[in-house]
Amino acid sequence: MSYFDCDKIQFEGPTSKNALAFKHYNPDEMIDGKSMKEHLRFAAAYWHVMRNDLSDPFGAGTARTPWDDGSSSVENALQRVDVFFEFLEKTGIEYYCWHDRDIAPELNDLSASNAALDRVVAKLKQKQAETGVKLLWGTACLFSHPRYAHGAATSPDASVYAYAGAQVKKAMEATKELDGLGYTFWGGREGYATLLNTNMKRELDHLAAFLHMAVEHAKQIGFEGPFYIEPKPREPSTHQYDSDAAACLNFLREYGLMDHFKLNIETNHATLAGHTMEHELTVSANAGMLGSIDANRGDTLIGWDTDQFPTDIYLTTQVMLVMLNTGGFSTGGLNFDAKRRRESHEPIDLIHAHIGGMDAFARGLKIAAAIRADGRLASFVQERYASFDRGLGAKVEAGQCSFADLETYALANGEPTLASGRQEMLENLINEFL
Amino acid sequence: MSYFDCDKIQFEGPTSKNALAFKHYNPDEMIDGKSMKEHLRFAAAYWHVMRNDLSDPFGAGTARTPWDDGSSSVENALQRVDVFFEFLEKTGIEYYCWHDRDIAPELNDLSASNAALDRVVAKLKQKQAETGVKLLWGTACLFSHPRYAHGAATSPDASVYAYAGAQVKKAMEATKELDGLGYTFWGGREGYATLLNTNMKRELDHLAAFLHMAVEHAKQIGFEGPFYIEPKPREPSTHQYDSDAAACLNFLREYGLMDHFKLNIETNHATLAGHTMEHELTVSANAGMLGSIDANRGDTLIGWDTDQFPTDIYLTTQVMLVMLNTGGFSTGGLNFDAKRRRESHEPIDLIHAHIGGMDAFARGLKIAAAIRADGRLASFVQERYASFDRGLGAKVEAGQCSFADLETYALANGEPTLASGRQEMLENLINEFL
Amino acid sequence: MSYFDCDKIQFEGPTSKNALAFKHYNPDEMIDGKSMKEHLRFAAAYWHVMRNDLSDPFGAGTARTPWDDGSSSVENALQRVDVFFEFLEKTGIEYYCWHDRDIAPELNDLSASNAALDRVVAKLKQKQAETGVKLLWGTACLFSHPRYAHGAATSPDASVYAYAGAQVKKAMEATKELDGLGYTFWGGREGYATLLNTNMKRELDHLAAFLHMAVEHAKQIGFEGPFYIEPKPREPSTHQYDSDAAACLNFLREYGLMDHFKLNIETNHATLAGHTMEHELTVSANAGMLGSIDANRGDTLIGWDTDQFPTDIYLTTQVMLVMLNTGGFSTGGLNFDAKRRRESHEPIDLIHAHIGGMDAFARGLKIAAAIRADGRLASFVQERYASFDRGLGAKVEAGQCSFADLETYALANGEPTLASGRQEMLENLINEFL
Amino acid sequence: MSYFDCDKIQFEGPTSKNALAFKHYNPDEMIDGKSMKEHLRFAAAYWHVMRNDLSDPFGAGTARTPWDDGSSSVENALQRVDVFFEFLEKTGIEYYCWHDRDIAPELNDLSASNAALDRVVAKLKQKQAETGVKLLWGTACLFSHPRYAHGAATSPDASVYAYAGAQVKKAMEATKELDGLGYTFWGGREGYATLLNTNMKRELDHLAAFLHMAVEHAKQIGFEGPFYIEPKPREPSTHQYDSDAAACLNFLREYGLMDHFKLNIETNHATLAGHTMEHELTVSANAGMLGSIDANRGDTLIGWDTDQFPTDIYLTTQVMLVMLNTGGFSTGGLNFDAKRRRESHEPIDLIHAHIGGMDAFARGLKIAAAIRADGRLASFVQERYASFDRGLGAKVEAGQCSFADLETYALANGEPTLASGRQEMLENLINEFL
Repeated sequence: MSYFDCDKIQFEGPTSKNALAFKHYNPDEMIDGKSMKEHLRFAAAYWHVMRNDLSDPFGAGTARTPWDDGSSSVENALQRVDVFFEFLEKTGIEYYCWHDRDIAPELNDLSASNAALDRVVAKLKQKQAETGVKLLWGTACLFSHPRYAHGAATSPDASVYAYAGAQVKKAMEATKELDGLGYTFWGGREGYATLLNTNMKRELDHLAAFLHMAVEHAKQIGFEGPFYIEPKPREPSTHQYDSDAAACLNFLREYGLMDHFKLNIETNHATLAGHTMEHELTVSANAGMLGSIDANRGDTLIGWDTDQFPTDIYLTTQVMLVMLNTGGFSTGGLNFDAKRRRESHEPIDLIHAHIGGMDAFARGLKIAAAIRADGRLASFVQERYASFDRGLGAKVEAGQCSFADLETYALANGEPTLASGRQEMLENLINEFL
Repeated sequence: MSYFDCDKIQFEGPTSKNALAFKHYNPDEMIDGKSMKEHLRFAAAYWHVMRNDLSDPFGAGTARTPWDDGSSSVENALQRVDVFFEFLEKTGIEYYCWHDRDIAPELNDLSASNAALDRVVAKLKQKQAETGVKLLWGTACLFSHPRYAHGAATSPDASVYAYAGAQVKKAMEATKELDGLGYTFWGGREGYATLLNTNMKRELDHLAAFLHMAVEHAKQIGFEGPFYIEPKPREPSTHQYDSDAAACLNFLREYGLMDHFKLNIETNHATLAGHTMEHELTVSANAGMLGSIDANRGDTLIGWDTDQFPTDIYLTTQVMLVMLNTGGFSTGGLNFDAKRRRESHEPIDLIHAHIGGMDAFARGLKIAAAIRADGRLASFVQERYASFDRGLGAKVEAGQCSFADLETYALANGEPTLASGRQEMLENLINEFL
Repeated sequence: MSYFDCDKIQFEGPTSKNALAFKHYNPDEMIDGKSMKEHLRFAAAYWHVMRNDLSDPFGAGTARTPWDDGSSSVENALQRVDVFFEFLEKTGIEYYCWHDRDIAPELNDLSASNAALDRVVAKLKQKQAETGVKLLWGTACLFSHPRYAHGAATSPDASVYAYAGAQVKKAMEATKELDGLGYTFWGGREGYATLLNTNMKRELDHLAAFLHMAVEHAKQIGFEGPFYIEPKPREPSTHQYDSDAAACLNFLREYGLMDHFKLNIETNHATLAGHTMEHELTVSANAGMLGSIDANRGDTLIGWDTDQFPTDIYLTTQVMLVMLNTGGFSTGGLNFDAKRRRESHEPIDLIHAHIGGMDAFARGLKIAAAIRADGRLASFVQERYASFDRGLGAKVEAGQCSFADLETYALANGEPTLASGRQEMLENLINEFL
Repeated sequence: MSYFDCDKIQFEGPTSKNALAFKHYNPDEMIDGKSMKEHLRFAAAYWHVMRNDLSDPFGAGTARTPWDDGSSSVENALQRVDVFFEFLEKTGIEYYCWHDRDIAPELNDLSASNAALDRVVAKLKQKQAETGVKLLWGTACLFSHPRYAHGAATSPDASVYAYAGAQVKKAMEATKELDGLGYTFWGGREGYATLLNTNMKRELDHLAAFLHMAVEHAKQIGFEGPFYIEPKPREPSTHQYDSDAAACLNFLREYGLMDHFKLNIETNHATLAGHTMEHELTVSANAGMLGSIDANRGDTLIGWDTDQFPTDIYLTTQVMLVMLNTGGFSTGGLNFDAKRRRESHEPIDLIHAHIGGMDAFARGLKIAAAIRADGRLASFVQERYASFDRGLGAKVEAGQCSFADLETYALANGEPTLASGRQEMLENLINEFL
């Protein structure tokens, strides 16, 4: 029996085309010396595939999930694991990510929740072994339960802080047990609703202490994968401390945490912060801190996280250009932190959505590789900075220049000539390759 | 003869009220042990008062400036100095700020521009001596001339970089000559229009080298005032590197510049970056980096810098609460980086605008002082974090806690109790004092 | 027994002040010939007070509701009615509003849901009679149930359309039974998620047909109160047809519905549409279509409907200025369509929130009345248009002018003189009255 | 001699590719029975090509215009005409648009300005005759001169109103003289800066009277082309009355002007108003009011009109889908109301920019035609509404249905079945054709 009856795609709706016939994604095709699947390292998000009921603030869930009995029993959780791995097999996705509370229920007390988690982790371990699927990263859900309403590691209540620490400890151990390649911190409630009741300094000190404890615990359990911080502004907290890549880096630098963390950059979070995705990726890469990607897209006319599937070829091309330019993923990957629209409530819509996202990234990869092979774009940029490769510019880069030197040069050389930035020509050049 | 015929205010329009009769600002009134003028340290922006013709991208300037002959002669520049000091006297503002090119013309070559600047600075020095007015900070305009279209310290052209260095050197020397209390960097073109033609890493390395040269030059000339960096996102560059306080701090930390800089926070820049003014002030203050304030406000329905005069009492109260809580200004002040609307084109509108802003801040100061004297707000916040003053929380703050400790506590203590954040009660409390 | 133990307010937290002691709201105080309560006509929203569990897209509900057994039984619904009327009594609010599914449960089929509604309506009728409380308006919830995912009166499925019609018919009858003063349409799902699958013209034709059926049904049952349309953009539908006041008016004009409808304007919806609240009120009033107000506020840094309580005195002053200028409410009122923050989860927070909102509007009313009594603001505006009271301007207003006349005048009279708009002076004038 | 030395493109920069070799635009290629150039009807904007100096609010103009002596002489204006027609010839653009003050200078008084306009119009007429180029539309610039600071047809000053009328009268006559296919109203200052000083109702009455005078004058001079209204929100007026398509239609309906106007829809204006371009086009088309298009794009992270060249294939595909579905342009066309970035200051950048835009639209046309030929998209939409083609749905569309009928149906038929909207599948389908 199958819940994702992909054969049906051939016959449903007004089309006879098989959506599963990828048009661009060919996992074993070699691009620049690596297979497409190694370049792209697609991951599925357990929460969106298995646990998102497609509710929104104005309406109840619509998702059809015939495999789910709606209970918080461990048996129901175990049953979902089978369906999820069927989904991975159908789509050919080889990595996945979870929050602790997605894969196993939150029960009456922490011990019971931990025991439930252990049972599900055991089954995930067995399924990973059978299929070769890998855990890209795990994380603890520290934002959904009411106890975290005021924050977890930034809660004003030390007992909430303790609960969060216990939950992360367990989630790290589960990640280790599943040979997870990384562990992610997204601080959904690490921020504030109003400064009127908030001591920001004290909250950030607590957060840093918390992350140092995580570093220590990783050493103790032998977890070597990187920790990821995931920037996001304004949602759900009115102000999230980790609002963008620069805010995260500033925090990590201030508190001496740069060595143990990298960033997990999400497209929709970048745009909500007022940046492009390629900006946030570049800021992270320049700091040597680009770890992994949550691949989705936002709706730029809408002011919240829409987590739509990435289908825009311009976006996937830009992302893959940055990735190729920086040598590609090591431990990270492209995690589809994306959900179907509330109106796309059938299991087959999960297939359409992921296939579309994978194909869009495959196409972006091919285009980015072609642009790099062509060389014009890179040459243009290199030429543009050529005056810093020699003479005065080289002295500046060598740190051997003073304002007096610059003044002497300026007085002697008169008005500089303005070169064109050629933005329009370069945009046309990108279109050549689409 | 006077260009700001304030007596006229009594008779113009449908009112007989004298706008110059401040309702709340009383310079010598003592609040919490300091006079209001010491608390507020108002400054006028030479560029807005004297040089803003009130043009916008869709229309020509409207400002009526009968004192200005429209030429770029030094005589015209000197004439403006007299009018500006008349304006300061009429409003009772005791500090001011300038860009080099506001006070003196950009002439055919750098030597000529420097010479013009020298003549104006000499006159400013004389007027300062006569009146007791002080220079809050100086800065160089590195964004208006076409040569800076691609940036100044981040230009891809080393000869532009040199020109910028020469200009900053001179502006620093002029600031020193006028006993300026600080020197500001706002990187209007330090950013990029498109990543397609940009090497972000190289540009930021160049910027850091530039700022280190400024630090060195300050030592050489004996300038001891702080440097200020002024965050702003997205305008005029599509992406400004110094997009918000956190981005500035991250940059300063990365490049070892924290000791020599503080931040100059502007209200409208904060909101354009998606933050409240009090957030940006608090981020800066927490890092020990709150230097000065550009006092204005934005229109939150409008996506660009409107630089309106600050008249919202809620805003001025929040700003003064942060300032009182952090001990007030040392070298910085409240600089009205604000302009009249294009339709308010008469000299008297400058008076209305500044009087309104000053009175709004005076009122904010009184309200903030009253809230602090009342004590309920601060007590509420202190109580909220009380669990970190003792027991487990105190251990966390002392850096003596591990995840194992937290887990032990959580397993032993069961579900935390959720306290109310009382945001609505606290908002009502603020309204009590308005 | 009381669930809103207001006496406790005196003793809780760090304060001994009684929040229930209104500082500005005095129901029977006369302002401009009407009592404050007649001017303000406060209403409570059943959905926020009784049914909002304070969940958000990232977390479960936090609201403490000891009176609610969590079931969808009619008995539970009836128990809520008692608590709600206790709340109204404690706060002194004399009007209320509901959606059908707030007050009574959605049961297994339409007949059962209708029967449940009848039982609750009977109890509400009794409570109204006992207390004198009045129903400001009723409405049907056509957005929460999954069947309405694609719209209700704009659903592509005629059977959904029929269901919506049946539900509105019943809700209108319940409103009539309770002597409701109005009936509101907010089309939460009347819009589209993507134009790719949407026939906009056909959907709007269906919506118009639906509203004409409502007009007919009102005649049949003798319901005479106005229908209200409530504009809102972008949420929950990616594009809501009724995006702002102008879009609603355009639709009503096109389909011949102007005589039967007025607009219900909500602050947060106005700002999400890029307008100020006073703009939307004025657009409605100018068309003779201002009916009622959903009183709340948004957070202008946040891109979704935050439905915060209105505490900003500038906002309440502007709203009351428009209301006083247009003669005040006839059938409508100020409905607090506002919710506490998720962290303010105790019953007493409902009291703090409503008290704060009521007091802010009372203060706005007093300020607006004072500004009108002062007369300077109105005089300024009248003077500004004086040239249209005579000569050429009067000819224009009389419809007796041609382009040739205008050209003759312009050629003869030379360059017009530009007057100042005095925005800053007028903003100062408003601050005088705060 | 040529100012657009396109041969140079082959050799400049790091590329030997000839940007002028369109990759997709082939003017005479037939698509669906019409040539590409008939489908697309490209127009150049005189203001951006000839008069935009690429200044911005933070810096002076950068554009290199060796043909322009910088004076406001008529000779200089006539010289520009030659250069503009060279530009049209080089790019193969066959239509153009102007404001009166772009083509001829504003001189000391209206008579002199009119005389200057006459001389330039005479030259334009001759160049049109020589080349076959046509005027898509003319318009009067009623926003740049200080006299219009408070509006033109909505100015509170009747003498400004008269001046505006005189200017429009003359611009209409010039348009007629040049056989212009249309005449456009964009009300750059028709709105307000603050409601505090504004009588909105009176201003809109005046605007309507003005447009009725335009209708009368068109009859008198025999101008038969449509008038276009161009919606735009928030810039430069804080609130523009014509904020979006719906606001324009509401105004035209209220004042009885629907028969004489159509809408000119601009991409960047649509997105600033919170709508997609295809939404605004569809709203206009559904009302039978889609007249012409200002083809550009915005930067969705930036809150003002960036007027960038349209290079996004998704955008051009959506636009051409609407145009093909509604039968294409009659009097209107695709006017490139777009400017180069300030850093792209050389004449050749004008060529790059327009070529890129034309090619992007040619590609969008081909893709849209292919999607229509394929038929799956249209079939999906048609099927989705099939329940309104028969039975109850057909009765609704025929206006023969009542709420009682709907209730009877709903009670008899039980819970509707929810169909999937298949947004993700449809987005993938679009990507198939790119």
